Amino acid sequence: MATPGHAAAIVIGNEVLTAKVTDLNGALLIKRLRARGIHLQSCVMIRDEVDAIVDAVSRARESAQWVFTSGGIGPTHDDVTVRGVALAMGREVVRLPEMEKMIRAHLAPQEPKLASLRLADAPAGSRLIQSELTRYPVLACENVFMLPGVPELFREQLEVVLRELPTSTVAVKSMFLNAREVDIADALDEVALARPHVAIGSYPTFDEKCDYRVKVTVEHGDALEVAQAVAALITRIDSRWIVRIE
Amino acid sequence: MATPGHAAAIVIGNEVLTAKVTDLNGALLIKRLRARGIHLQSCVMIRDEVDAIVDAVSRARESAQWVFTSGGIGPTHDDVTVRGVALAMGREVVRLPEMEKMIRAHLAPQEPKLASLRLADAPAGSRLIQSELTRYPVLACENVFMLPGVPELFREQLEVVLRELPTSTVAVKSMFLNAREVDIADALDEVALARPHVAIGSYPTFDEKCDYRVKVTVEHGDALEVAQAVAALITRIDSRWIVRIE
Repeated sequence: MATPGHAAAIVIGNEVLTAKVTDLNGALLIKRLRARGIHLQSCVMIRDEVDAIVDAVSRARESAQWVFTSGGIGPTHDDVTVRGVALAMGREVVRLPEMEKMIRAHLAPQEPKLASLRLADAPAGSRLIQSELTRYPVLACENVFMLPGVPELFREQLEVVLRELPTSTVAVKSMFLNAREVDIADALDEVALARPHVAIGSYPTFDEKCDYRVKVTVEHGDALEVAQAVAALITRIDSRWIVRIE
Repeated sequence: MATPGHAAAIVIGNEVLTAKVTDLNGALLIKRLRARGIHLQSCVMIRDEVDAIVDAVSRARESAQWVFTSGGIGPTHDDVTVRGVALAMGREVVRLPEMEKMIRAHLAPQEPKLASLRLADAPAGSRLIQSELTRYPVLACENVFMLPGVPELFREQLEVVLRELPTSTVAVKSMFLNAREVDIADALDEVALARPHVAIGSYPTFDEKCDYRVKVTVEHGDALEVAQAVAALITRIDSRWIVRIE
């Protein structure tokens, strides 16, 4: 069952997996979703192959309310995202009249090439989200937002989509500890077990320049829950180990 | 069927998906595998939840000969990679005597805490790869390499694993074109269709500072195949559009 308020991301492109291009879109999406309080379930990078896209989209839609794809939108042979999304959703690929009209108007008086018109192809039932923020409209089909891979375009279109989605807040406290993970493992275990709804993470560092050895993060939508979990940890962790709490 | 010579990567950790930490390990793995000529099928970032790990590992093993995980190795409650990998492979979690001995020797004369000994737990049949390159041995179970998420440790251990794997070469040519993608789409289509074994990618840029508008990459293990595909493209693309070929 798709979890309400959760998102999943699919970065499509051989260029990313073959190190020709460093992916910027996944990292940006992670940051921007976080800032809006939207939970990201997963972010997968896959090759631009129809089967891989069908599979990733089907699975993302099972787990998340909103699915973002990046890349594979365009007129060339390696742009297969529309086909993959359509197959995953059991829909035909159709030409969107509204988009075709825009392309024809843009190129007039020249007759558009077949390749240009491919840009108007979309899974049946797709909608275009127009905005003054973007040079091209966002292509969306139900809960799947198909964003272009070009970082400038991705960034613009992401903001348009984010404006459509509800926001929520996340409260986080970080405890910086001068202890090894093994020293605090029991305390974390107990509190995590007693408060499974609060997300507790433990991150050691081996960087000599840090004034701590483990950072423990405590996270929840409600600041009171976070404060209570932090209090529970404080009573279980040797106070001499606590460097600071932020 | 797992594709020989192909790898898949799984980055495990809420900290990455919640933007607390920018993932460095996935990006490093992509670059290092590429340098060794190993094909990366996919790189997925998932939450540190057992179900998500079981699922990702099972799927990665179906598609790739080698699977790398990053993160979730350690003594705390959120370190569930070993359990996830064991479940995915239908194996019990056992304590590795060799690792337990190392931990005991390291802590002697103190008796290790239970949490410390958790570091010796692994899927049954796992092996430890010792090397002078790393402070901790690499934990491997068949074709799954479980690397720690701490970037310094990940980097060390990745090199140890890479030394175990065969290398191959990849030949690439890039054509920088002063054309729109729609102008070259037919040419790319034809050549890609005639030479499906050669990977042809098309990447537009909207950066005004670039002296080209589309970069076309042609890639194969054999340089002759690449040269032939580039030659086929040259005959089909208006020579005035070709800025340079590298």
